[in-house]
Amino acid sequence: MTPVAGVAFLDAVPSVDPFALMNAVGLVAFAVVGSLKAMEADLDVFGVAVLGVLTALGGGVTRDVLVGRIPVALQSTTDVGVVLFGVALAVSLRRWRSRRLRDHTVLLLADAVGLAAFAATGALVGVDAGLSTFGVVTLAALTGVGGGSISDVLLDRVPAVLREDFYATPAVVGGVAFWVAVRLGVAPGTAVLPCAALVFALRLLALRYEWGLPTV
Amino acid sequence: MTPVAGVAFLDAVPSVDPFALMNAVGLVAFAVVGSLKAMEADLDVFGVAVLGVLTALGGGVTRDVLVGRIPVALQSTTDVGVVLFGVALAVSLRRWRSRRLRDHTVLLLADAVGLAAFAATGALVGVDAGLSTFGVVTLAALTGVGGGSISDVLLDRVPAVLREDFYATPAVVGGVAFWVAVRLGVAPGTAVLPCAALVFALRLLALRYEWGLPTV
Amino acid sequence: MTPVAGVAFLDAVPSVDPFALMNAVGLVAFAVVGSLKAMEADLDVFGVAVLGVLTALGGGVTRDVLVGRIPVALQSTTDVGVVLFGVALAVSLRRWRSRRLRDHTVLLLADAVGLAAFAATGALVGVDAGLSTFGVVTLAALTGVGGGSISDVLLDRVPAVLREDFYATPAVVGGVAFWVAVRLGVAPGTAVLPCAALVFALRLLALRYEWGLPTV
Repeated sequence: MTPVAGVAFLDAVPSVDPFALMNAVGLVAFAVVGSLKAMEADLDVFGVAVLGVLTALGGGVTRDVLVGRIPVALQSTTDVGVVLFGVALAVSLRRWRSRRLRDHTVLLLADAVGLAAFAATGALVGVDAGLSTFGVVTLAALTGVGGGSISDVLLDRVPAVLREDFYATPAVVGGVAFWVAVRLGVAPGTAVLPCAALVFALRLLALRYEWGLPTV
Repeated sequence: MTPVAGVAFLDAVPSVDPFALMNAVGLVAFAVVGSLKAMEADLDVFGVAVLGVLTALGGGVTRDVLVGRIPVALQSTTDVGVVLFGVALAVSLRRWRSRRLRDHTVLLLADAVGLAAFAATGALVGVDAGLSTFGVVTLAALTGVGGGSISDVLLDRVPAVLREDFYATPAVVGGVAFWVAVRLGVAPGTAVLPCAALVFALRLLALRYEWGLPTV
Repeated sequence: MTPVAGVAFLDAVPSVDPFALMNAVGLVAFAVVGSLKAMEADLDVFGVAVLGVLTALGGGVTRDVLVGRIPVALQSTTDVGVVLFGVALAVSLRRWRSRRLRDHTVLLLADAVGLAAFAATGALVGVDAGLSTFGVVTLAALTGVGGGSISDVLLDRVPAVLREDFYATPAVVGGVAFWVAVRLGVAPGTAVLPCAALVFALRLLALRYEWGLPTV
């Protein structure tokens, strides 16, 4: 419960265990990415908030619906609070500086943290629900990239993850690794952090070396 | 159970308590709006029916899925009957008169009635399911604007509520008001009608004074 | 359990009762159709796999969510295995021959088999869940055409079934016939094959005589 020095805005997050921290960073980053996309597409202020919220929470909500539970995000106010902070941040940053923020290193890193935390959470929920390998991997990927894809569809675009970029692949690999670890006897709760670290590392390598998938 | 004078087509609706009446008016209006959009986009007759049905029932179906219940609309035949009446009405009206019907005052009023009834129902379902403030407000807005947004996505458009118009905002405000009322001790069943009245009034004011939200 | 002569690739399918066979043929055909669409739209290899999987499994997943059960496809590995075979087949075929494969007679026939099997399964699930006539017909149509429609939306297109073609109509008619049969006392399990046969026959007639629905 000790506040993390230098990350003041996270004082509001109830727990600061490493995974909760990664999750909060991811919620903010995803909200910023979604809001920036919405502002670039000239949505009104309601649309900007909706896109921020959906980018951050849409993957997790879809995941929860698939395993038959009421979405955690709709039962809590904390998550949406963190997300709305991200939306406000995006609006402020955009006013403050005109150049394109979406490729800023800090945002890309925070986004990779979010992808990692969300993919690991998705795999955990899939294992808890007794899904097959395919189900576990699907939930890992969906929790990681579902929110951004929903936002792309609402903005009348083909989801970026389907076209280009090495973005969903780390989540898929993380889901497979999580499933293998659990099959080898690792406790699901213990597998979460290494799984997230793997996703994060793959995503960083992809950014650094500009990895992409081929078309066929 | 006494028929309402001058609203003959609603005699078929099983109950005429004020809220059921508002709901039926909304189903017809939303079905008309959805069918007109589909006809303007040159969909075939199946597409027109699907768009009418989805515009009217899609928000409620999504809401029910989110709270883990089998959608009411799929368990009843009454609602879809009212909706198909709306689809038939739209087809007839379009043949009978050529000028654009979507801005007709009667349709705008009926649509506002529907928005009000749907938003209030959504808030009620959210409170019943024990959701957070955010969850209750989300269900109010989603029940009100979800069907139209699904239709827009199927027609390959950015949902209108995200771009312009003061349409989702009354539903959001209604959801907040509902939640506050329930927290202050008002019985949820009692809060439904005043909440719907508030949404309706805000929507009428928005139409009258051409309110819109700013972009950022 | 005897393998079916001449359909070697289906030896891997655990059961070869006629309906499971139809279902497997449908999974392969739908996966091929989805992957071809994705390749034509220049998606990367992940996008091609996702579109193949969603086209084949998306309708059934949506159906399961609507009746409140965890999607069968996420609890099994067999189905996705058959689907990924279809994706690999599409990739190989496209490399092997350059001309457009989507109108090949074998693919159109296999696709019609899939539509029939999926629509009948959807109607059965709807009856099992105690849905209304409307609910049963909706699940029949959704299971048959939902996956393809989701794919179209992801590719930023109006779903083809809403615009043209006599494709959803056989599924709707099959759903109505299934519901009538069950109401007349036919056991749901017994009604599945005749229902699928009806859908298949209607779809073949539509292809042969180029049936379409009018616009209004």
